[in-house]
Amino acid sequence: MGGAGTGEAVTGGASTDELAERVQAGDQRALARVISLIESGDPRVRSVMKALAPSVSGARVIGLTGAPGAGKSTVTSALVKAFRGAGERVAVLAVDPSSPFSGGALLGDRVRMQGHATDSGVFIRSMASRGQLGGLAAATPQGVRAMDAAGFGVILIETVGVGQAEVEIASAADSTIVLVVPGMGDSIQAAKAGVLEVADVLVVNKADRPDTQATVRDLRNMIALSSAEWKPPIVTTVGTSGEGIDDLVRQLDRHWEWLGTGGERERRRLGRARDEVTALAFGVVRERLAVPDELAARVAAGETGPLEAAAELLASTGF
Amino acid sequence: MGGAGTGEAVTGGASTDELAERVQAGDQRALARVISLIESGDPRVRSVMKALAPSVSGARVIGLTGAPGAGKSTVTSALVKAFRGAGERVAVLAVDPSSPFSGGALLGDRVRMQGHATDSGVFIRSMASRGQLGGLAAATPQGVRAMDAAGFGVILIETVGVGQAEVEIASAADSTIVLVVPGMGDSIQAAKAGVLEVADVLVVNKADRPDTQATVRDLRNMIALSSAEWKPPIVTTVGTSGEGIDDLVRQLDRHWEWLGTGGERERRRLGRARDEVTALAFGVVRERLAVPDELAARVAAGETGPLEAAAELLASTGF
Repeated sequence: MGGAGTGEAVTGGASTDELAERVQAGDQRALARVISLIESGDPRVRSVMKALAPSVSGARVIGLTGAPGAGKSTVTSALVKAFRGAGERVAVLAVDPSSPFSGGALLGDRVRMQGHATDSGVFIRSMASRGQLGGLAAATPQGVRAMDAAGFGVILIETVGVGQAEVEIASAADSTIVLVVPGMGDSIQAAKAGVLEVADVLVVNKADRPDTQATVRDLRNMIALSSAEWKPPIVTTVGTSGEGIDDLVRQLDRHWEWLGTGGERERRRLGRARDEVTALAFGVVRERLAVPDELAARVAAGETGPLEAAAELLASTGF
Repeated sequence: MGGAGTGEAVTGGASTDELAERVQAGDQRALARVISLIESGDPRVRSVMKALAPSVSGARVIGLTGAPGAGKSTVTSALVKAFRGAGERVAVLAVDPSSPFSGGALLGDRVRMQGHATDSGVFIRSMASRGQLGGLAAATPQGVRAMDAAGFGVILIETVGVGQAEVEIASAADSTIVLVVPGMGDSIQAAKAGVLEVADVLVVNKADRPDTQATVRDLRNMIALSSAEWKPPIVTTVGTSGEGIDDLVRQLDRHWEWLGTGGERERRRLGRARDEVTALAFGVVRERLAVPDELAARVAAGETGPLEAAAELLASTGF
């Protein structure tokens, strides 16, 4: 394939097969390059991912989400330490949902996690959406798969959790942790509607604050109303001191075991594959569905209804 | 068209033409019904919107966004009062970006605005996404158009602003207000990257707090770096007392005038029509692009790459 200019700079002059081989050998620089290719929507991703496919062995993927200020980075960092202590190689994918409102926050998080920078059993990368095919909904599972192929047994996806995009990204995980902070009445209230839908484990972080027990009680009352088979356990942690992290790991293990029974793990992975393919197909459609100026002008002038215009657009593409 | 069961309940037994006529006559109950139809993705929306089209006269649309707790409802309410004072009929569309994390917050906002409930020149509705074709990106402009057809000259779109979805919704407006609060270091930092992209007017609300001037200075420094033709003015307000609202209205008027010069208003409306048609076309595509179980299973097992699977899926639909 070769590739010239920036392309060659990204692959370091290596062919995509060579690059895949180096990832499979655990070369972190090669892995970082592959994630850059995914991030930039490089067409060579297709052949790299194909070459990596045989090495993908089903790493355990843990999602971690929560509002800004909930302490995601410190908890992630503490989890990295705990899983390293258990002999796992751990990769962290910090996903920036590419909202203009949240840009930059995750970069800061990355810096705070530099405590693991010298450990070759830890790999940390952030990923933003720069116009990949299918957006982050497609790029996240690709990044996870590349990390898996590089031999990381535990992959943590960290993302700022407030909107639908973040929920979609969290759905790429086997187990999802939702972080809340005591005394943030607003955020708890805002989280109520959706928290049970995505949380496999609920963490009340910064649990040295006064309102901790009230928050735990609120969450417990919410959970009591759920009819889901898996009731998310509530863990209290102090990310900065590591307090409660052992318990969090225990609850994650318990969830991982539960996933293995009754086929839930396979069902989730099937759903994940379906979401990824849909997102990629959507990316292709998005590129082709450009509204002609003339059609937009007719809609803006009220001459053509928007639904009629959409039908016209689709007919013109043969869909 | 008629319609039976729930459908008839929603249209009140009226034909879509009758419903449209009542909206055009300014009947608020009919308008509420049309928005319910839009919200639920009812297929009759198409004929209702077609019948309403001749009455759409280009109302002034103002978007208002900001993080939870920024005081969006009080500022919206104060703006309603100010525009009413200027003799305008004002409609408010409180858009819930349908994130499971933010559900419920806007309902509370609605209640807080009941001060206008007895004024027939004010119409307030919230709208959530319940599976409309194209999601809220398509539903929002439809709701705006219905309000416009009902004779409201000023339409305020209020939405919780943190993610991409909210930015898309704000883009349905002629002028977008971004609300920040003094002393919320995190939120300012988080907002930095995107705030200049979407804000036509920046409001520092709760300006009776101590850090107000520091926040204004921060924002001013950000704006100084922008090369955009329109530099967003910064207004300080206290929504609860109405302080600064007159200045906000003046700045909105200034922006509205600026939009009229150089064709910017038309450019924005064209862009808006384009976005709406794209969102609707996407909704149709989404319904048709279902990944078959067998294909998802092959991807989950690593037998077929996701990009190959996406290509296969698209080929099977003839796209």
